[in-house]
Amino acid sequence: MASVIQKNLVEKNAEYANQFTQGHLALPPAKQYLVLTCMDARIDPAAAFGIDLGDAHVIRNAGASARDAQRSIIISEQLLGTKEIILVKHTGCGMLTFSNEDAHGLVKKNLGPSASAEIATLDFLTFGDLEGAVRDDVGFLKKSATVPDDVTVSGWVYEVETGKARQVV
Amino acid sequence: MASVIQKNLVEKNAEYANQFTQGHLALPPAKQYLVLTCMDARIDPAAAFGIDLGDAHVIRNAGASARDAQRSIIISEQLLGTKEIILVKHTGCGMLTFSNEDAHGLVKKNLGPSASAEIATLDFLTFGDLEGAVRDDVGFLKKSATVPDDVTVSGWVYEVETGKARQVV
Repeated sequence: MASVIQKNLVEKNAEYANQFTQGHLALPPAKQYLVLTCMDARIDPAAAFGIDLGDAHVIRNAGASARDAQRSIIISEQLLGTKEIILVKHTGCGMLTFSNEDAHGLVKKNLGPSASAEIATLDFLTFGDLEGAVRDDVGFLKKSATVPDDVTVSGWVYEVETGKARQVV
Repeated sequence: MASVIQKNLVEKNAEYANQFTQGHLALPPAKQYLVLTCMDARIDPAAAFGIDLGDAHVIRNAGASARDAQRSIIISEQLLGTKEIILVKHTGCGMLTFSNEDAHGLVKKNLGPSASAEIATLDFLTFGDLEGAVRDDVGFLKKSATVPDDVTVSGWVYEVETGKARQVV
C-alpha cells in the first residue's frame, strides 16, 4: 500500500508531468557546471542558486562534502563536460552538531553490532567550522589530480535564515 | 573575477533572498523522509516530486547510487529522524552509457597517471539495466543493517522525456 509520502509524489508528479515541456533537453549540462551542496531540507538549489532545468549537475550529500562527491565530480567533468564547480555549504548544518565518534556511537547503540561492523571504516566527514570547511573542501578539489587546473572552483555559504548566498573563496 | 556562472548565482540569489520568507524552518526534515536521485541536470526534484522547502532531505549523486549515498542516508536516519527513503533513477542516465573500465581509462588518458593512481580503487558504480539497478539498490538498502526494518524504502524511475515518475518496487 502506498505511503502518504508516496501518494504525495504521485499526485504532485502528475501535475508536473501534465505541464512538462522540456523533454528535449540533452544529457550534458547546457551551461557546463556543477553545483555541490548539502542534502539539507531547507535548500532548494534550483530556486536559490538560479539553476534552470538542463543547465547544471546538482550533487547533494550530508555537508556538501567534496571528498564524498569525488566519484560524481569526476563523471561530471570527464564524461559530461562540466568546467566549473560551485560548492555551497550552509549555516545551521547538521554536520556542525556532532562528531564522527558520536555518529558511530549512535549507530552501535541504535542499530547494533552488525550495523556498526558494516560501517566500521566510514568517515562521517563532520566539521567544526563552516567557512573553514568551505576553504578546506575547495582546497581538496584544487589539489586533487582528478580536477584539472582549467576547472574553476569556488566556495560559498548559503544562509538558511535569510536565503542569501555569499562567496567565501 | 567572477565567472558568468558565479554572476548568475549572485543575481538570481539576490532575487530569491529578496522574496524569502522561510527562515524559520527547523533542521530535521518536517515530513521525515529523504529522496535519493541522480545529479542529472534534467531533474528538478522539488518540482517533479512535490517536495516543499523543509520537508525532505535530497541526496543526489551520479546514478542515484545507494552505495555511494550510505554516509548521508545514515546521518539522515540516525541523526535527523527520517523514516522513509524514496530512490529515483531515470531514463537516459549517463551511468547506462559507460563502464567502470571506460571511466578509469578516460581519467588515465585525460588526467594522467597521478590522477589515475589517486582513484585506483574507486568504483564508478555504473549499471547496464535501469529497472534492474533500481531493484538492486532498493535490495541493498533493505539488506543493509544500517537501514532498520521500520524504514520504508521504494524505488522509482523518472522519465526525462515526459516528466513522469513511476514506481518500480
